[in-house]
Amino acid sequence: MSTSEKPAGVELAGDMSWCGWGRPELKTALPEAARALLEQALGIGRLDTPAVPLEAVRVGPSRLSEEARAALTAVVGAEHVLVDRDARIRHTRGRSTVDLLRLRGGDADSAPDAVVLPAGHEEVLAVLRACAAHAVAVVPFGGGTSVVGGLELLRDGLQAVISLDLRRLDAVVAVDPVSLTAALQPGLRAPRAEELLAAQGLTLGHFPQSFEHASIGGFAATRSAGQASSGYGRFDDMVLALRVATPEGSLELGRAPASAAGPDLRQLFVGSEGVLGVITELTLRVHRTPEVRLYEGWRFPSFESGITAVRRLVQEDASPTVIRLSDESETAVNRALESAAADGAEGGCDVIAGFEGSNATVTAARTLATAILTSKGGTPTGTEPGEAWLHARYRAPYLRDALLDVGVFAETLETATSWSKLAELHRQVRTALERELTWEGRPPLVLCHVSHVYPTGASLYFTVVAALAEDPIAQWSRAKQVASDAIVACGATITHHHAVGIDHRDWMTAEIGALGVEILRAVKQRVDPRGILNPGKLIPDPE
Amino acid sequence: MSTSEKPAGVELAGDMSWCGWGRPELKTALPEAARALLEQALGIGRLDTPAVPLEAVRVGPSRLSEEARAALTAVVGAEHVLVDRDARIRHTRGRSTVDLLRLRGGDADSAPDAVVLPAGHEEVLAVLRACAAHAVAVVPFGGGTSVVGGLELLRDGLQAVISLDLRRLDAVVAVDPVSLTAALQPGLRAPRAEELLAAQGLTLGHFPQSFEHASIGGFAATRSAGQASSGYGRFDDMVLALRVATPEGSLELGRAPASAAGPDLRQLFVGSEGVLGVITELTLRVHRTPEVRLYEGWRFPSFESGITAVRRLVQEDASPTVIRLSDESETAVNRALESAAADGAEGGCDVIAGFEGSNATVTAARTLATAILTSKGGTPTGTEPGEAWLHARYRAPYLRDALLDVGVFAETLETATSWSKLAELHRQVRTALERELTWEGRPPLVLCHVSHVYPTGASLYFTVVAALAEDPIAQWSRAKQVASDAIVACGATITHHHAVGIDHRDWMTAEIGALGVEILRAVKQRVDPRGILNPGKLIPDPE
Repeated sequence: MSTSEKPAGVELAGDMSWCGWGRPELKTALPEAARALLEQALGIGRLDTPAVPLEAVRVGPSRLSEEARAALTAVVGAEHVLVDRDARIRHTRGRSTVDLLRLRGGDADSAPDAVVLPAGHEEVLAVLRACAAHAVAVVPFGGGTSVVGGLELLRDGLQAVISLDLRRLDAVVAVDPVSLTAALQPGLRAPRAEELLAAQGLTLGHFPQSFEHASIGGFAATRSAGQASSGYGRFDDMVLALRVATPEGSLELGRAPASAAGPDLRQLFVGSEGVLGVITELTLRVHRTPEVRLYEGWRFPSFESGITAVRRLVQEDASPTVIRLSDESETAVNRALESAAADGAEGGCDVIAGFEGSNATVTAARTLATAILTSKGGTPTGTEPGEAWLHARYRAPYLRDALLDVGVFAETLETATSWSKLAELHRQVRTALERELTWEGRPPLVLCHVSHVYPTGASLYFTVVAALAEDPIAQWSRAKQVASDAIVACGATITHHHAVGIDHRDWMTAEIGALGVEILRAVKQRVDPRGILNPGKLIPDPE
Repeated sequence: MSTSEKPAGVELAGDMSWCGWGRPELKTALPEAARALLEQALGIGRLDTPAVPLEAVRVGPSRLSEEARAALTAVVGAEHVLVDRDARIRHTRGRSTVDLLRLRGGDADSAPDAVVLPAGHEEVLAVLRACAAHAVAVVPFGGGTSVVGGLELLRDGLQAVISLDLRRLDAVVAVDPVSLTAALQPGLRAPRAEELLAAQGLTLGHFPQSFEHASIGGFAATRSAGQASSGYGRFDDMVLALRVATPEGSLELGRAPASAAGPDLRQLFVGSEGVLGVITELTLRVHRTPEVRLYEGWRFPSFESGITAVRRLVQEDASPTVIRLSDESETAVNRALESAAADGAEGGCDVIAGFEGSNATVTAARTLATAILTSKGGTPTGTEPGEAWLHARYRAPYLRDALLDVGVFAETLETATSWSKLAELHRQVRTALERELTWEGRPPLVLCHVSHVYPTGASLYFTVVAALAEDPIAQWSRAKQVASDAIVACGATITHHHAVGIDHRDWMTAEIGALGVEILRAVKQRVDPRGILNPGKLIPDPE
């Protein structure tokens, strides 16, 4: 049951803004009150820093050879090898703030030499073989939402580079309502997947902030974690089986819900970011559509007391489906910016707790959670903050574009560690960012929340808001460096759910060790001896 | 805080029986009633088939060269390089029924050329380097409980083979009571680990049938699953970090409870069965000692109705800590053999449901589970069957020895698949075993239970009891072949928790595909270029 009837070229216009997040028609200017507040906090004057018009963007000529183009056309048809300016610009980079700054400045110099749209596993396999034969690099493209440079088009000494757009692999292949599994193709976007599953009374339960545009294959390739990870699990937990195309052939991995048949090779390809292969089908765990969705707010006197409370929740096996705890800074800014959530309270930390499931399980879970949160010093603030959060959950990336328009830089980074090291990690990363980004005596806003909890630890998600410097890319590069060094020094992971891409590649040796890197390289050599798959990402260069 | 004070040589005498399961002093003869029942069911006469005496066992001379022995002695000291007959016999093979039949027949021809006992990570590393230099194969040895040939001493063209006994790596390295994690050394036996953790109010919650003898490192190396996997998870879920020694250096993997930093290399070494490295330290998730342990029995009219009920439990997020469902055959035999559990009922299928946790969570979980089990046709049978099961949970392997003494062969095999394929898998494997093992018109006993449940599927654990044939090893080899073929034909996994070893190696290409096998080979080549690590296991030979 394929859902792609229209020719692919037509669909590109309905895609994301060429230089920002989301649908252009949904972009809104920064509210005047928020703008005034930020100007004051960051000590900046009234600025307008719009993007250049699309017509002014610089794109070089396609370097794809006639032979390579003919080979690709032979596989997917001429109408699925796009070399027009618009398609190439729209496949240039992902959606990190640095990606956006480059595009807004008119820089699409690294545009792909072509955008290729295969229709299925066999076509992907044939495209990879053709690219290996013609020395063409391949960057798989799902929803285009990478925020770590995962979609940068690097040639790495090869003749050309293509963007392999998987949107035509958008079928629900099979649903098993007894086992609660669904086999999906990778190019299916998350909202469409949810729509098709909902028609059968099912949900994936995977709702990252990129949800409205991200693809199912991208979730697996980047080890995504959704906002409801406490209830539905991380995406890597959901992957039961994978079909993968590599230049050296196909893999079909995963024959059972659990197995002791040696190393779990699925976990080599989950998180492989297009560097080891192209995921062409995923069998995923799905859930019955919850009967009940109940979201509410809680307030804690401090981040520390909040951390203790959410830790106890998950350690007592009583975690809600969604649990989010903002630190003091984020709580204060949220209250100032989102009048709907403000009730005049000052200080403390806000929590969102969301319960989903059957009537019986939600009632039981909420009773347990209420007892624990109360005993740890929490005060319930009712369902209004919960509903407000649920309503606005996908809006933040739009806000970033509005900030970039008025001279304000915003970016995020994330990590995870064990509970006993969480407060120190919070302190160290925050201090590093504040020190690096303080400008004329004014520190940046560094906001943080805990949004993914595990029995043994949790994630920290930082949002940084600063005055746009003259060279904001260099400014952020330095800040990212000190924050990443602080993360590694604390023994935490360099990324909890944004993946590696280019941005975290330099810290991979710290993450998995020199021999770990060598193992990844050995695997890559076996499946991609010509090195065409997403060069320059994930695996650091030999030292 | 090392717990090994005594010299290692002394401890061997306290080990398992040299040719059977467990402590010799705990072995009991088959009760006369059970013996009569089996003789009738299998149509066999009164037989006595004891093991040969230890003195009669054949062991060849050690082939370890003087140079290799000197190199090993330089690393661990002469007292930790054992070449005596007793030590070598006690490290010959694991505890599959075929392993036992060979030992009982006096065959220790494949005894290791030496037993080497390193004291820590650096010594393991140095031993591996010495063995690589001297072309000596290394078979890591934890508790000696493998049932898939994982401990067979194969030289694979090398000069010699040693058993690398890890018992001296038996420390609890660190406990983090806030994050609920513990760093343990691999040679720690499970009961001792539980004892040391219990002193701090903690438990691993990992209780496989091999619990009384198995080691922590072995659990990880074989992807073990304990009887309480529904509550505490499989062992692979518990592994947060690993330290691994390979001939090419060390690995330290795992920096956070969850990460998006590329492929999860921990999952290459969990399940690597000593073929890719030697695990020298594990950081594991632990749990607070449960306040309450409540075990009870349920009865269902049929295996099919029981399967539906336990599926609903886990899919509704209402699974007890332990859930086991016996099929009609196993239920009937259990009732006949274990008078404690019998209440005169006939037909149907027995379920054990065990709840562990805080008072509040046990009460909540049991209420949910009771509602679901009742609605699916279950009848509670009280706590007596639950307590009886809990009491006898580690006795079955002793029973096997008693059966072997009286001419009766018993062995187990296990697999897993999705819920929608479970009944068909049960039928196909059972039919294959019955067809192959029927002797003079008498079928074997083929018993089965579901003991590990997941939202998307479950395991099946088969026990086969048959008359001991003239060549029982050939008899079982054929039966194992047809059962394994049936498993693969159903699309199920060749092993859910027993691992691959030698016994499942021929089915690994079906499990992970030819390219998957090539990837394992590429990883092995990188970390073990001389091929010294547990040769002949896990990875099939090139075709």
